[in-house]
Amino acid sequence: MEIIGERINGMFKDIREAIKNKDKTAVHEWAIKQTNNGAAWLDISTGAAAEDPMDAMKWLVETVQEVVNTPLAIDTTNYDIMEEALKLCKRPALINSCHADRYKIERVFPMAVKYGAKVIALAMSEESGIPKTADARVALAMELVAAADEFGLPFDDLYIDPLLLPVNVAQDHGVEAMEALRQIKLLSDPPPKTTCGLSNISQKCANRKLLNRTMLVMLMACGLDSAIADAADDDLMEAAATARIIMNKEIYCDSYIDLYKTNKY
Amino acid sequence: MEIIGERINGMFKDIREAIKNKDKTAVHEWAIKQTNNGAAWLDISTGAAAEDPMDAMKWLVETVQEVVNTPLAIDTTNYDIMEEALKLCKRPALINSCHADRYKIERVFPMAVKYGAKVIALAMSEESGIPKTADARVALAMELVAAADEFGLPFDDLYIDPLLLPVNVAQDHGVEAMEALRQIKLLSDPPPKTTCGLSNISQKCANRKLLNRTMLVMLMACGLDSAIADAADDDLMEAAATARIIMNKEIYCDSYIDLYKTNKY
Repeated sequence: MEIIGERINGMFKDIREAIKNKDKTAVHEWAIKQTNNGAAWLDISTGAAAEDPMDAMKWLVETVQEVVNTPLAIDTTNYDIMEEALKLCKRPALINSCHADRYKIERVFPMAVKYGAKVIALAMSEESGIPKTADARVALAMELVAAADEFGLPFDDLYIDPLLLPVNVAQDHGVEAMEALRQIKLLSDPPPKTTCGLSNISQKCANRKLLNRTMLVMLMACGLDSAIADAADDDLMEAAATARIIMNKEIYCDSYIDLYKTNKY
Repeated sequence: MEIIGERINGMFKDIREAIKNKDKTAVHEWAIKQTNNGAAWLDISTGAAAEDPMDAMKWLVETVQEVVNTPLAIDTTNYDIMEEALKLCKRPALINSCHADRYKIERVFPMAVKYGAKVIALAMSEESGIPKTADARVALAMELVAAADEFGLPFDDLYIDPLLLPVNVAQDHGVEAMEALRQIKLLSDPPPKTTCGLSNISQKCANRKLLNRTMLVMLMACGLDSAIADAADDDLMEAAATARIIMNKEIYCDSYIDLYKTNKY
């Protein structure tokens, strides 16, 4: 289970202020804090409010890489910004994200191959929106897998997101996402990787952290490999480490949580 | 998710002493405490050390029923004691448990029908021991379902246990148990219920409670309906309530944990 730390994002006030004032402090702090707590990747997003999003993204990428070696997930819908950011990444990055629309795939998948990046690909298209059923999610996932084959993106570098919605407004989607995960793992050999935007499940709900970590391990039982999530949440990281042991991905030892957090596995 | 509270068991010192001295205090306390924390059933076991196990079981059943109406899971391998206990139960009980051996099925299933009891049936036999694979567990589960049909035990009253082993000695069994659960749910219409002895997973491990609650919700994602577990563990009960919401078994509301604990759903 690879946690993609969600915190370096301009939707959070401290990061928004950091970008505005070119003050590196909060960016450095969150890069180190998430890495030290076991994040395998750091998501980097300027948020919607950045005045010069190209400049802000490049500054964030460079600032984070001053203090950690953790690979980055570049989070933007603007693929020109994406490409400039990929050029700056010292380690192969994760493109976050690509819809299952043909014109986006044609822009993103070759770019991923060119820069040796991996891709988070959403099981939704602009036309369909977020599918209601597992089957409809899997149908889009199948198109993504076929496209990976076509463009030479290794299946292992394709991270399919079955899409989570808040449990208080779309409660039936959780079970569909779980079933979709199970089926997505059968689409190719090797199977594609899977991911999700975990915190979506608990938006405007009570018990947010409890919902997040419960959903995380339930999805892991269905084949989830990674999640964009709050890597600073100790309970979440401990749940992820524990589910990894239960899934027999690493050999049990009494200190398995510490090993997970230091990426010693 | 129905939690079968595990605490009234002579393997715990306070219950062992209570039985020995016919002191009702600890038995009353645990009956009330587990019920108030959301236990749907109370497991009742004299433990192996009781001098007169028949007398001890009857005393426990009567003592518990003095203070709560929660239905009981009668936990003994001695079926004469089982039958005497069933006669005393004010509400339909749960027989804990029956192996998948023919001579045990022939004794237990008709007894369950006679007393309107439900049965926890283990996906293991004396001959096979605990199966290594999901498929072997499911083969035994299939025999149990066929036997339920034969003896007129409603499928809904059959609780199949895929069997958990400690993660530190038999780590590969967890994944097999999960896969078995998924398949067991496809064996009949309506499907059999499922259960497990949850605390087995964490015997002599570090982070016991974390392992227990993580395993619980992962199994729920695979079709687990109930578990013999520590109903006094608040974190466990909250995880169970949350997974129930994620599985869309009850409609989300902000106070879903309180509703779960008071069996108000």
